[in-house]
Amino acid sequence: MSVPATTVIPPLADELDIVIPTIRNLDFLEQWRSFFQPYHLIIVQDGDPTKTIRVPEGFDYELYNRNDINRILGPKASCISFKDSACRCFGFLVSKKKYIFTIDDDCFVAKDPSGQEINALAQHIHNLLTPATPFFFNTLYDPYREGADFVRGYPFSLREGVTTAISHGLWLNIPDYDAPTQLVKPLERNTRYVDAVMTIPKGTLFPMCGMNLGFHRELIGPAMYFGLMGDGQPIGRYDDMWAGWCAKVICDHLGLGVKTGLPYIWHSKASNPFVNLKKEYKGIYWQEEIIPFFQSVVLPKECTTPQKCYVELSKLVKEKLGSVDPYFEKLSGEMVTWIDAWNELNPSTDGTEVAAVKKTDGAPKKK
Amino acid sequence: MSVPATTVIPPLADELDIVIPTIRNLDFLEQWRSFFQPYHLIIVQDGDPTKTIRVPEGFDYELYNRNDINRILGPKASCISFKDSACRCFGFLVSKKKYIFTIDDDCFVAKDPSGQEINALAQHIHNLLTPATPFFFNTLYDPYREGADFVRGYPFSLREGVTTAISHGLWLNIPDYDAPTQLVKPLERNTRYVDAVMTIPKGTLFPMCGMNLGFHRELIGPAMYFGLMGDGQPIGRYDDMWAGWCAKVICDHLGLGVKTGLPYIWHSKASNPFVNLKKEYKGIYWQEEIIPFFQSVVLPKECTTPQKCYVELSKLVKEKLGSVDPYFEKLSGEMVTWIDAWNELNPSTDGTEVAAVKKTDGAPKKK
Repeated sequence: MSVPATTVIPPLADELDIVIPTIRNLDFLEQWRSFFQPYHLIIVQDGDPTKTIRVPEGFDYELYNRNDINRILGPKASCISFKDSACRCFGFLVSKKKYIFTIDDDCFVAKDPSGQEINALAQHIHNLLTPATPFFFNTLYDPYREGADFVRGYPFSLREGVTTAISHGLWLNIPDYDAPTQLVKPLERNTRYVDAVMTIPKGTLFPMCGMNLGFHRELIGPAMYFGLMGDGQPIGRYDDMWAGWCAKVICDHLGLGVKTGLPYIWHSKASNPFVNLKKEYKGIYWQEEIIPFFQSVVLPKECTTPQKCYVELSKLVKEKLGSVDPYFEKLSGEMVTWIDAWNELNPSTDGTEVAAVKKTDGAPKKK
Repeated sequence: MSVPATTVIPPLADELDIVIPTIRNLDFLEQWRSFFQPYHLIIVQDGDPTKTIRVPEGFDYELYNRNDINRILGPKASCISFKDSACRCFGFLVSKKKYIFTIDDDCFVAKDPSGQEINALAQHIHNLLTPATPFFFNTLYDPYREGADFVRGYPFSLREGVTTAISHGLWLNIPDYDAPTQLVKPLERNTRYVDAVMTIPKGTLFPMCGMNLGFHRELIGPAMYFGLMGDGQPIGRYDDMWAGWCAKVICDHLGLGVKTGLPYIWHSKASNPFVNLKKEYKGIYWQEEIIPFFQSVVLPKECTTPQKCYVELSKLVKEKLGSVDPYFEKLSGEMVTWIDAWNELNPSTDGTEVAAVKKTDGAPKKK
């Protein structure tokens, strides 16, 4: 009897785009070929649009340079940063898929302690397709993982969890440090493989790094705006932090989950700490005001879509952070432009309420 | 030249007691000998006080049975549970040390993935002597650990951290599951060694297990009351959960940190799930009310010591949980008895304000 040939279809192959911001040839994709080739790539070319970016053969991709961004968005292109990896969010805007995985071009395939190559994308998909548990801490980490569960004392009413909107992956080799830490510890490498995925509790902010990140585009995409950075702006290297603060506050409000931990990628090369310091220094002191602001944000009940939440947040940014620096008034304006652009390019999602919120907020009842 | 013999003094040998509740001979200590022998043990003998508990030779210990508890506490002995490991908190009461490590007698030495025996006590001490970071999440876990640090975007004003009051360790082999999970997954074993220590964020509750637990007795000891369980009580196996909910809320109020993760111990034997179900079943539905209660507790500013916080909490328990079951009114009364007993046996600590709170609450300033 002959055995029929079976084709393993990679998970979400038709429902996920890989977004890569770059200024160089994408030779790094060779290492990822077996994991990424079934997926569609959206490449956002930063810097000089006349330069040709070489993409290895066999990948299915679309590529946008600055001219494309200006053509597609017209005057709304002002919300997309130039000469900064913040430009990646243009890829989120033009995607038509349910999920996004975004990765930097200096990130390579890491190995787990057994020497096995890590399929980072598969782990992100697993994280996104299993629930999150933001309302109570599980000491054995992800309770939905093989060989783990909820521990004694975990309320049964919370074991259904909530929909996961964000999967934040980590980095072996070069850790994601700020310029001062890079300067103080130039030789530090991350060699510790922590075999865990966990939910970041509701009400807790975290530093979201855009290097190795998956998210549910339909549920949280409109909050994944990477701000105004780079060319002509007073700040850089806070693009992903900005998106992380906004997205976490909105996930908390909408009853969505944020996970961090696995998968690791291999981060190959530290960026120049002196250049980084110049980009970061305003952020380093501004964040001392920005974080208390985000910790105290309360969104009104009427905000039932990520778009509505984001527009509301833009108003609060103007009102509460405008006094920190005029930059935040400008940023607030571009946050609104971003949502306008999102709704223009994604007309069907405008006004779509987040199902998770409508169904149940998952939170334990208050006395 | 002769090299002088050097004696390595184990950390905190004069400042830490090991508390063990038991009903049987303590042969399990043989495995722990090299790690525990330099420390003083407080053994709390549960059940029949006429039974002789054998302690292996060479350990420095004091042992209390029920007759001793009744003699020492007089009428206040009513707050100490009988025929339940909740009796361990009597050991916290009579200790005169700054730190406590408590462990169950079915917990053995685990091995890390390299095959090295884990000195659980040394790891708890390390956790307790390094700060915690409850106000913002660090994605590379404990930033004070060798080879790790705060990641980009972590506010610099929060990098000093706060004093760690609790170190919650985990279990390889038999996971700490409730009776329903034990019944459903009788063969599940925890084989995953997660090489991480992390701070449980402020405002997040967790299920604290008393099997493998270290804490700063001076700072949080008065909140480490294991409640009324076992003989004559309608509930069991919620002793450590109760202590954990109370202690976490008080740590959050006092600006103290709670860590979980390493060290692992080897948990040898699952308790009987049918017996456990009988002990737990009221807790399983009561906790659906208890946890929202603890999530909403706000302690007044005037509560600047763990004693004051605990007495205040006892009032709230009576007021808010009394309607769940008359048990909570009784428990509330014994919470006060416990504090009276604590102050009687520890007169010098009564009214001592928590230094960490007086200095700074570590929280970022609110706008």
